[in-house]
Amino acid sequence: MAAWARAVRGLLLDISGVLYDSGGEGGGVPIAGSAEAVQRIKASGLKLRFCTNETQATREKFVKKLQGLGFDISVAEVTAPAPAACRLLKERGLRPHLLVHDDLVPEFADIDKTNPNCVVIGDAAENFSYANLNEAFRVLIGLEKPVLISLGKGRYYKETDGLKLDVGAYMKALEYACDVQAEVVGKPAKAFFESALAEMGVRPEQAIMIGDDIVSDVGGAQQCGMRAVQVRTGKYSSHPRDIACDNTCVLYVLSLGAGDCSLQQVRTWGVRIGHSTADLHLLVLWVLENSLASVGEKKKKKKISPSI
Amino acid sequence: MAAWARAVRGLLLDISGVLYDSGGEGGGVPIAGSAEAVQRIKASGLKLRFCTNETQATREKFVKKLQGLGFDISVAEVTAPAPAACRLLKERGLRPHLLVHDDLVPEFADIDKTNPNCVVIGDAAENFSYANLNEAFRVLIGLEKPVLISLGKGRYYKETDGLKLDVGAYMKALEYACDVQAEVVGKPAKAFFESALAEMGVRPEQAIMIGDDIVSDVGGAQQCGMRAVQVRTGKYSSHPRDIACDNTCVLYVLSLGAGDCSLQQVRTWGVRIGHSTADLHLLVLWVLENSLASVGEKKKKKKISPSI
Repeated sequence: MAAWARAVRGLLLDISGVLYDSGGEGGGVPIAGSAEAVQRIKASGLKLRFCTNETQATREKFVKKLQGLGFDISVAEVTAPAPAACRLLKERGLRPHLLVHDDLVPEFADIDKTNPNCVVIGDAAENFSYANLNEAFRVLIGLEKPVLISLGKGRYYKETDGLKLDVGAYMKALEYACDVQAEVVGKPAKAFFESALAEMGVRPEQAIMIGDDIVSDVGGAQQCGMRAVQVRTGKYSSHPRDIACDNTCVLYVLSLGAGDCSLQQVRTWGVRIGHSTADLHLLVLWVLENSLASVGEKKKKKKISPSI
Repeated sequence: MAAWARAVRGLLLDISGVLYDSGGEGGGVPIAGSAEAVQRIKASGLKLRFCTNETQATREKFVKKLQGLGFDISVAEVTAPAPAACRLLKERGLRPHLLVHDDLVPEFADIDKTNPNCVVIGDAAENFSYANLNEAFRVLIGLEKPVLISLGKGRYYKETDGLKLDVGAYMKALEYACDVQAEVVGKPAKAFFESALAEMGVRPEQAIMIGDDIVSDVGGAQQCGMRAVQVRTGKYSSHPRDIACDNTCVLYVLSLGAGDCSLQQVRTWGVRIGHSTADLHLLVLWVLENSLASVGEKKKKKKISPSI
């Protein structure tokens, strides 16, 4: 048993690729065991926060979809980029030109958008037309000091029908065209994770971030002082490009030997792992077995038989 | 008078932003004096090559448009990225997935495009939809060793109705999404300029490249050993981001003082110029006055009165 795990008081969960795979007619498909894992966390007394870069819908609409898929989740439990961006815009007196998904626009309802002095870009999906990207480019290139705010920097995500380009790719296009560096709101920004921890009332060393993105989830959380685990659901792949994380990554993996499982640190630099982490279900079982949940009651130990 | 100018035997001209501004109903508007400048070069006996990154049309169609705008130009005088890409594809047995303008597709008519093992990206303009970029991304990410070939790396260009995103921005998006580095065919690739020089039968030190792009035209030509001049037509701007060139630039500018003009080297490192270069018309007058054109006949000298 890992001694550090006894100090764990809270979990931060990525949503897409961890709870469900998005896309398709119903809006997505739950990942087996994830709804039960969320219930277990809540029953344990551990603090829980959903930490997502989802920007294709308002939090209200997004949460409603997840509830429909069987998840016990509420808007108040979700940390997402759009509200963080709105705080930043107000603080700095910025008036955005929005290049985002139509369904996200209501999040910016009370933000002044006249005479834009910055561009906010999110996962706009089909809205990433040439005309729309060119319009955002012209706003940026026309500013004396171009300000580009990006709701995440993900390269791609997985939908039920395959991989989809994420906002990070388009952020890079505008960065290059305008010779500007984007300010990223959302994962992996440190301020974003710190905000989620503050909302939980948990210190970084007491928290574990669980996600399927080695850069946005694992790398970002670790920059913030948390431990982080990559699941092998969602867009996880064992291709080297997907398991290297800017040389800053300490990855924990479930070691699945001899009928038992343990969470171990496997690399400290230039991560390239040959074996893999697990799904949310198994990770949560491990955490609950090894942590002293905030109810203060030591849980009964039993071996876990990995099913993967 | 610059002594080196006497050795000049050939000129390479960028087209868009130097000869004309593209866009609008007629396909573009000639830049004042440029058609006459081309005529003067041809009459002088200097070698001439049009060196363009234009990939929105086949060379045949492009040249026809320019002829319609009053330019003395033929297909055989044009060095363009698509034919260079076709040579590269054949040499390496590559079968491209094309993300290019519809009007460029005929250039790839005799290239095997079944079961793609690389992606070729050009200035696809409106074809840069989310669906199309995502399709190219999926081809690339699915390859064991992704090969991305980009027909240029321009950030943007100027059309009559304003600035437009160029292929470079979308190249960067795919590079980031797939963690791959594109191979650039076209300016500023050294092989591309070398090919143009070979077609002219002129050595680098005997040639001047004239363009409006500080990276693709000026920087690229200088990497190849040529002198290069930036015109202040086309997308030229005096914004610092547009006049810095990867710390490799030696820029020649027309100095416009005292009723005379001279072409002088103004910076050798981290170029940031306060004053400006000129249009093609004036540059050609200067070159013809100062070079010994290949007819071998020393031209009669006279002062040029700059009109800009």
